Amino acid sequence: MAHKLVLVVRTDLGMGRGKIAAQVAHAAVTAVLAAQGAQDAQRGSDFRAWLLEGQPKVVLRAGSAAELSQIADAARAAGLAAEIIRDAGRTQLAPGTLTCCAVGPAENSRVDAVTGGLALL
Amino acid sequence: MAHKLVLVVRTDLGMGRGKIAAQVAHAAVTAVLAAQGAQDAQRGSDFRAWLLEGQPKVVLRAGSAAELSQIADAARAAGLAAEIIRDAGRTQLAPGTLTCCAVGPAENSRVDAVTGGLALL
Repeated sequence: MAHKLVLVVRTDLGMGRGKIAAQVAHAAVTAVLAAQGAQDAQRGSDFRAWLLEGQPKVVLRAGSAAELSQIADAARAAGLAAEIIRDAGRTQLAPGTLTCCAVGPAENSRVDAVTGGLALL
Repeated sequence: MAHKLVLVVRTDLGMGRGKIAAQVAHAAVTAVLAAQGAQDAQRGSDFRAWLLEGQPKVVLRAGSAAELSQIADAARAAGLAAEIIRDAGRTQLAPGTLTCCAVGPAENSRVDAVTGGLALL
């Protein structure tokens, strides 16, 4: 069973591609640190499998802060890890702006059940 | 002393913003895993400081594979960690294509000595 980490980024904030890349990287690193610290055995095995598979990542889009929050809520309700990134607000955005959400890493089908309706960035 | 992780991404490959974000995230995660596994005391303390500072990331651009390799070589010659990402080639690029390079995390001035001449993505 293949695993992936999905990064969902807001497209309604007018972020440039460098800003988007930094936020997505922040979400990916946060998801990795959370998975490493998780006590849950399933999360631990999902994380190790994902690393061995070459840490596949897929970047998807959301259109609002509300949509990003709904995705995170749905992921957690499905027993998946979700990490929401809030921008520090040093450059383009107001401090605390929700920019990105990581879902997983977990088995593809479990992630798709939450994020399968979203378009690629 | 502030610390940062610099991600340098090639702009000559015609990658879309989602592809760029995934490659930058891959480089950031790879740099974090390498820092966690490093035996070097300076790298360990730089990594912990960087995390405490909110893991600042800066995304810069390079124009070719040769430039990316030169940046990695210069970083290592300066005693900095450098991780080069090769694309698995499943989608837009030929397998093994160099896409991105992570430098650090390390003290800002040491990173700037290597990447200070590069433009923001």
